[in-house]
Amino acid sequence: MDYAKESARLHEMWGGKIEVVSRVNINSKDDLSLAYTPGVAQPCLEIQKDYDRSFTLTRRHNLVAVITDGTAVLGLGDIGPEAGMPVMEGKCALFKSFADVDAFPICIRSKDVDEIVRTIYLISGSFGGINLEDISAPRCFEIERRLKEICDIPVFHDDQHGTAIVVGAAVLNALRVVNKKIENVRVVVNGAGSAGIAIARHLLTLGVQHLKLVDRNGILCEGVKMNPAQAELAEITNPEKKGGTLADAMTGSDVFIGVSAPHIVTKDMIRSMNEHSIVFPMANPIPEIEPDEAKAAGAFIVGTGRSDHPNQINNVLAFPGIFRGALDVRAKEINDSMKLAASHALADLASEDGLSADYILPLAFDKRVGPAVASAVSKAARQSNVARL
Amino acid sequence: MDYAKESARLHEMWGGKIEVVSRVNINSKDDLSLAYTPGVAQPCLEIQKDYDRSFTLTRRHNLVAVITDGTAVLGLGDIGPEAGMPVMEGKCALFKSFADVDAFPICIRSKDVDEIVRTIYLISGSFGGINLEDISAPRCFEIERRLKEICDIPVFHDDQHGTAIVVGAAVLNALRVVNKKIENVRVVVNGAGSAGIAIARHLLTLGVQHLKLVDRNGILCEGVKMNPAQAELAEITNPEKKGGTLADAMTGSDVFIGVSAPHIVTKDMIRSMNEHSIVFPMANPIPEIEPDEAKAAGAFIVGTGRSDHPNQINNVLAFPGIFRGALDVRAKEINDSMKLAASHALADLASEDGLSADYILPLAFDKRVGPAVASAVSKAARQSNVARL
Repeated sequence: MDYAKESARLHEMWGGKIEVVSRVNINSKDDLSLAYTPGVAQPCLEIQKDYDRSFTLTRRHNLVAVITDGTAVLGLGDIGPEAGMPVMEGKCALFKSFADVDAFPICIRSKDVDEIVRTIYLISGSFGGINLEDISAPRCFEIERRLKEICDIPVFHDDQHGTAIVVGAAVLNALRVVNKKIENVRVVVNGAGSAGIAIARHLLTLGVQHLKLVDRNGILCEGVKMNPAQAELAEITNPEKKGGTLADAMTGSDVFIGVSAPHIVTKDMIRSMNEHSIVFPMANPIPEIEPDEAKAAGAFIVGTGRSDHPNQINNVLAFPGIFRGALDVRAKEINDSMKLAASHALADLASEDGLSADYILPLAFDKRVGPAVASAVSKAARQSNVARL
Repeated sequence: MDYAKESARLHEMWGGKIEVVSRVNINSKDDLSLAYTPGVAQPCLEIQKDYDRSFTLTRRHNLVAVITDGTAVLGLGDIGPEAGMPVMEGKCALFKSFADVDAFPICIRSKDVDEIVRTIYLISGSFGGINLEDISAPRCFEIERRLKEICDIPVFHDDQHGTAIVVGAAVLNALRVVNKKIENVRVVVNGAGSAGIAIARHLLTLGVQHLKLVDRNGILCEGVKMNPAQAELAEITNPEKKGGTLADAMTGSDVFIGVSAPHIVTKDMIRSMNEHSIVFPMANPIPEIEPDEAKAAGAFIVGTGRSDHPNQINNVLAFPGIFRGALDVRAKEINDSMKLAASHALADLASEDGLSADYILPLAFDKRVGPAVASAVSKAARQSNVARL
């Protein structure tokens, strides 16, 4: 199917992928007096007395804002706020379909970090959580960090953490299949944008000790041109502190994770990896190396972002359950232990089914995924004392 | 029924009066590829090429933001942004129930006019219209004026214009009943807040020539303490330019409109009005004078904001149809001719049914109201060249 052509036709027909509906019937004077004036004054006064009641007396307890500035939409780059909205609406439809989370799309007509942070903070009282989406790096790091400091609800940049959580689960299970220990393997992450940096951080938290983060200029290390976020990562990765090319990094490595560009990994690079190599070329829609080529060159386990190959590494496995779990306990934030719990819940779910080189993650439409991730995230929120319920 | 107690119980049970749902089914890999990646890239690119497509390829064409800063919520005053949300959600439920408009509630955590204007502008690309709600005067005048200048979608402060439009319709029909000409009658508007000022402006546009606007300090005129918005009105009202009390203003008047305080109008004031007097004490929940007392003192036609008396003057007769009509032709703004058309459409609808002292407006649940107002508003938008469709 020509997805582009058909999707354009359907979007025209749909006239929007989300809709705001009323949960109350307003068919009589009494209905009006209870849902609106004069009755509505009472819940208003109760919230004025006790701010926490804003979650139970309005939809806030189940409501997430999906917010973009349109600067890094899919692989399309800076296409502008309004042009990013079909993606935001799609994300909202997924939130509802996969975890019954009400999600509402908002685009912001500014690229200024201060202004974006202030705008989101000022409207944050309307929501129970904030999902940042398709904001360009390195701006996205500062925007998320500052919002987490000032907001009293979870703030989560899915392009970073959603991807990292699913990759983390895939790595955990792939290592189970090849029977290697996470603290011993050598991991290469190619692409030092928002996803690559978040993946690297998350893998370190999961126990990886030998990790090299690579971008256009080669392995991140002193002397290489880097933004502040990359410089931070250079300090805590690449223990040998040696520079080099992507090929150098991949030689003798056990795991390759690509969030970079089409077809930049060669068969020789795959051949240079250790036995039972794990290769996740996730560039979308065209991966760093075609899965069949990677296999032909000796890759033992291959996963991509694509749905037409085994081991699809898809954010939809994470973000619905993460916010479901955070909202269920009214978590103040989504912290590292909640992200770790999500990766382990995903990994364990597939593991119970029996792992193989072609099955290291649950499938996107596995109905068990949302609830499993949600309950693990809720539990971790309670244990790390960020749950309000 | 104890509306306050019952409403609080119901709000707890409802857990929100609005909900965001998905309009698309996502049950297969193909569904995912069309509603989300990779297919969704195509509608994004089409909006990037042609901004107007943001209305047809997302929900924007049917979506209104209901926005407050929580500074003038109902009669409760400045109760804070989150505490105002039950009212905003109620408004959104009414938009959907009465005119199939998707409306989404947002509260802003700021009282600073510049910041509120900037915040609303920055998110305005997510919506097809902006309904301002429960923002205190005189701030609301500047916020609306500045937003109308910079936004490319309709901006409408319902507390001002919704009320004015319904009052305008009530005045038109009441004058038909008593057979008086609008250019000859003497009108008193008591209360010079957002509603009173908008009502005064709208009545002047409808043809009233003798209008006195009164507030705590008496009839607005030179020498009386006024804010800038009130000073503007003082110039174009009160042709004799004479000061005085509310009692002075009402003596020899034909129409009294109250948007002020409970029980401040006496029977003697009503008796001092001309024959066949028209009295709209709309203070909520307690009117300026009880309807029965007004009648006993000789008022010929009485209307209030309350649903337990005839002639309820209720905004719900206006705002759903106004935005329906504006969205249907993708109007750039909601201008005076659209507001006039709405008042006349409401008046004519009741007039066709046959008017009486107890029937000058359609009833709140009259299904003909929304469509009648919408088509009049759409037509006026086209004729005044603010329609894009």
